[in-house]
Order: sequence, then structure tokens, then C-alpha cells
Amino acid sequence: MFYLIGLGLGDARDISVKGLEIVRRCEEVYLEAYTSILTCGAEALEELYGRPVTLADRETVEQGLDSVISAAGERDVALLVVGDPFAATTHHDLVLRARERGVPCRVVHNASIMTAVGCCGLQLYSYGETVSIPFWTDDWRPDSFVERIDANLARGQHTLCLLDIKVKEQSVENLLRGRKIYEPPRFMSVSVAAAQLLEAVGGRAETDPGLTPASRVVGLARVGTDTERLVACTLREMAGVDLGPPLHSLVVVGNTHPMELDYLKQFELGSDAKDTGKAKEGETKADQASS
Amino acid sequence: MFYLIGLGLGDARDISVKGLEIVRRCEEVYLEAYTSILTCGAEALEELYGRPVTLADRETVEQGLDSVISAAGERDVALLVVGDPFAATTHHDLVLRARERGVPCRVVHNASIMTAVGCCGLQLYSYGETVSIPFWTDDWRPDSFVERIDANLARGQHTLCLLDIKVKEQSVENLLRGRKIYEPPRFMSVSVAAAQLLEAVGGRAETDPGLTPASRVVGLARVGTDTERLVACTLREMAGVDLGPPLHSLVVVGNTHPMELDYLKQFELGSDAKDTGKAKEGETKADQASS
Repeated sequence: MFYLIGLGLGDARDISVKGLEIVRRCEEVYLEAYTSILTCGAEALEELYGRPVTLADRETVEQGLDSVISAAGERDVALLVVGDPFAATTHHDLVLRARERGVPCRVVHNASIMTAVGCCGLQLYSYGETVSIPFWTDDWRPDSFVERIDANLARGQHTLCLLDIKVKEQSVENLLRGRKIYEPPRFMSVSVAAAQLLEAVGGRAETDPGLTPASRVVGLARVGTDTERLVACTLREMAGVDLGPPLHSLVVVGNTHPMELDYLKQFELGSDAKDTGKAKEGETKADQASS
Repeated sequence: MFYLIGLGLGDARDISVKGLEIVRRCEEVYLEAYTSILTCGAEALEELYGRPVTLADRETVEQGLDSVISAAGERDVALLVVGDPFAATTHHDLVLRARERGVPCRVVHNASIMTAVGCCGLQLYSYGETVSIPFWTDDWRPDSFVERIDANLARGQHTLCLLDIKVKEQSVENLLRGRKIYEPPRFMSVSVAAAQLLEAVGGRAETDPGLTPASRVVGLARVGTDTERLVACTLREMAGVDLGPPLHSLVVVGNTHPMELDYLKQFELGSDAKDTGKAKEGETKADQASS
């Protein structure tokens, strides 16, 4: 049996009880570590599971998971995926390939930023299409996401922007020379995303109905963790906001209901409400009681 | 501390390890039971948690949760919510009201149908706005959802349709007479949803670019459970499909990539692949090994 198990937002204990039970009895456990990142180390997983976890990086997933699928034909194998297993395209392909080979699959769902973004107060119903913002390079500066954000805004919809993650990338030179030397991981921050968006909409007047420097946006960092931070401001302001360590996401705000506005107020740039409601557990009575 | 804890897709063991730890040390535990349903009984929760769970129904949530918020000002209180706590509007209001009263809140995210719908193979990125389809009555037959499905289709986007749930509703007569007699719960099936949609688009030709009887749809039942069932067919055919017990959801398919089509093939109406990949756990090796 091939189990695809969602880890949720990235803390070891975000796995579901069902997922944990399955992992604990699987003979082989792999962690898919290139489409997202854990906010904890893989060691924290191993400690919770009481078994070794093998890192399946991009290379392994794209080239080598055939061997994992084969193993799953013989014994119980789990592939751990940050977020929900089906939030990324890759995993549909994996399931299809496993089924073609007669290996039964089972999926354990979990939280994903695509739902957890509800924490900023904007209604999930009112989001249009999700866009991905890739890191620009000197000679590769795609901006089709602006068109999609504009189309969402034209319908009054919010847009969730997923920000680029580069894990185990090779430089062009190393790739050409076939050298397996990898660049350090990079995670796009809300400020870099905002800067790219500002450049993409360059000369637009603030009266433009699409995305402009004056558009309202929400920056989200480490959603669902104890250090979660949210900031609401204009796109122009967001280019100067530092939300700290990854992962970051950005929301472009469409038409808002009064309740949505009320909720966003908590996160206004410059407001004193720095706490987004994630008290550290050590501060709670429950923790004291349990200790 | 006021904890809002997502239960995920509705099985007791879909709660996260973090959520379970919190529930086990909370002094009062409430289950919000009117915006969705558990596929297990509340007893299964009590057994897993080792503590009593109080049902907070619609009346309690809309009128009485003030007392729960007050309690949370004094001690640790958990409100359990099927899916993700922020998938429904009500909970933003709750958090705001708690914060206004100085009661700290903490949210534990979980899987929601809004992400788990990825199980049908259509990319989450390619969904437009989500719509809700309410039960029609003799004199209340709203159809604004058709307009939104059409707008999504015009952009090539898929549409997730959330189907109505009526829990603890009073008949008009009982409501007027102030009698607290409630109707049995009702859950909209994919066939009822399809029938309403067919009626709403009535005379449309199949060449219409919007929703028509020939539009491709996917019916989903009990996503994430061992009895999950998915069927892909036309809207016309869906009106005759019985997917069994609740909860059901419906997806209207927009433009598809070859991989999406390949994945959908598994669920074609009339295909032999009745199994959607959710083998019963009792059949797996891991279960045998753990027993």
C-alpha cells in the first residue's frame, strides 16, 4: 500500500492522528521536501514517529520514485507531503503511476495554505483563481500572474499568491556540467513578491481598476505556527515589510464585506496588534495544567 | 484561552496530534454541529479524547456562545469545528467577539473540502470562486450560483459547489409558534444539486458556453473517509446518480489539462473503477502488522 500523507502546515504535530498511526506502522517512510518546507526539522518527525524518515528531494521525486512505488507494491510505504497531498500537481501523477502498476494508494488529507489563508479574515468563498509568483531572473521575468490578479479584481475576488520556493536548484553552469552542486534554498518573502508585482504594474495610475501600488494586500508568514504573523497594507508598503523567516504568502484583497474589513484591522501595518492570536503554548493555562 | 480546533473531514482520528493534545487538557470541550457533520458520532470523539463533548448547535452558536467565550476567559475551552475553523464565516465573528472581550484565541487548522477536493484530480489552482447551492423551496428558488459558475467557465475555471445542510431547522409553523421542534437533518445529494442546476439552466442549448445539461461535473461523497466515492459524468447524468450517505459536493469542470482528464477517467460513470483508492484499512498489511 502506498500512503500519501499530508503533514499540514509544517509543525511535526500537525499530522493527523490517523496519519500518525499509519506512519508508525509503515515499513518505509519518505518525506517530500522540495515543493514546500517544514517549519520543524525532519528529526522532529523521526522523534514523533519513532522511525527513520528518508528525504525524497526533487531529483528523487522526479526520477526515482518509481523505486518507492515498487516498494509500495510489496510493503506499506508512506510518502509525507507538507500541506495537503493534492495541493501540488506532482502527486496526482504519482497516484496515477502507482495505480497503473497495480499499487493501491491511500491519501490522508490535511490543512493547506489554500484553506488556512482564511486566518486573515477574507472569506474563502470570495477568492478567485490562485496564482504562483516565481523568482525573476535577469532574463526571465514572467508577469502573467498580474493578468489573473486583475481578472479576479474585476470580479471583486481576492487572490492568494503562492510565493516561490527554490530547494535543491542547480546553477545553469553546474547543470550544464552535470555537477550535482546545489544552491542554498531560497524562499520568496512578501517584500520581494510585492517588489516584483510593483515592477510588473509599473506605470499604472491608482485609479486603474486592476492591481496598482495602492492596492490592499495582506502578507502572511508561518501560518498556523506559534510565530504566525499577518500584516495588511498597500502593495507599495508591503515592499518594505519584513515578516521574518519563511514560509510567506501574499493575498491581494478584492471587494470586502464589513466583517472582512473589521477582521483585517487587527493586522493593519503600524497597529499595535502584533499578536495574531497565536499565543505561545507555554503561556496557556492548559500547558501549565498538563505539565 | 479559547481554542478553535479543526476536526478535518469528519472522522474522529482526522484531528491533528496538536489539536488532540489541546483538547485533552481543555476544561470544557464543545462541538459545533450545524455548519457541517461528522461522519462519526460525537461518542467516537469522547472516546478518543477521554472527556465529555458538549454539542453546540445552531441555537447555541448564534445566541449562546457568549457564555462559552466568558468561560474561555477563565479557563481553557475548545470549540471543535468540522473541516478548517475558518472555512465558515461564523468563526471569524466568534474570534472577533472573543478578542473584543480580551479573551485570547488560538486556531488549529485542518483539512477542508475546499482543499481536499483536489482528490478528483482537477488542479486547485484552476478553481474560480466557490459557490453554495441551497435547498430550493416552493417559493424560494435562488439561482445566482449559475451566474458565478458561468463566470468561472468563461475563464476556463472549475467550480466547487458546496451543497446545503439543514440541521436543527424549524418549520415555519413551529418557528411562528415558538415551538422548539426541529425538522430531521437534511443533506443535499449530488443528484438533487444537479436537478436544481438543470432546472436553473432550463432551455440552454448544449453549445452555450456556460453551464448546460451536457457540462462535465464530478460528484464527490464522503471525501477522505474509507467510503469515499467519486463519479464523473455530465450534469444531466448526475441527476440520476446515487452516491449514498452525506456529505456530498459537486464540481463543475472547466478547461482541463491532459493530466486532469487522465485522472478523471478513473471516476467515469459506468467505469469499473469503483474504488477511488480508499481501501478499507482492515485490508492493508499495515493493519495486519499492527494487530
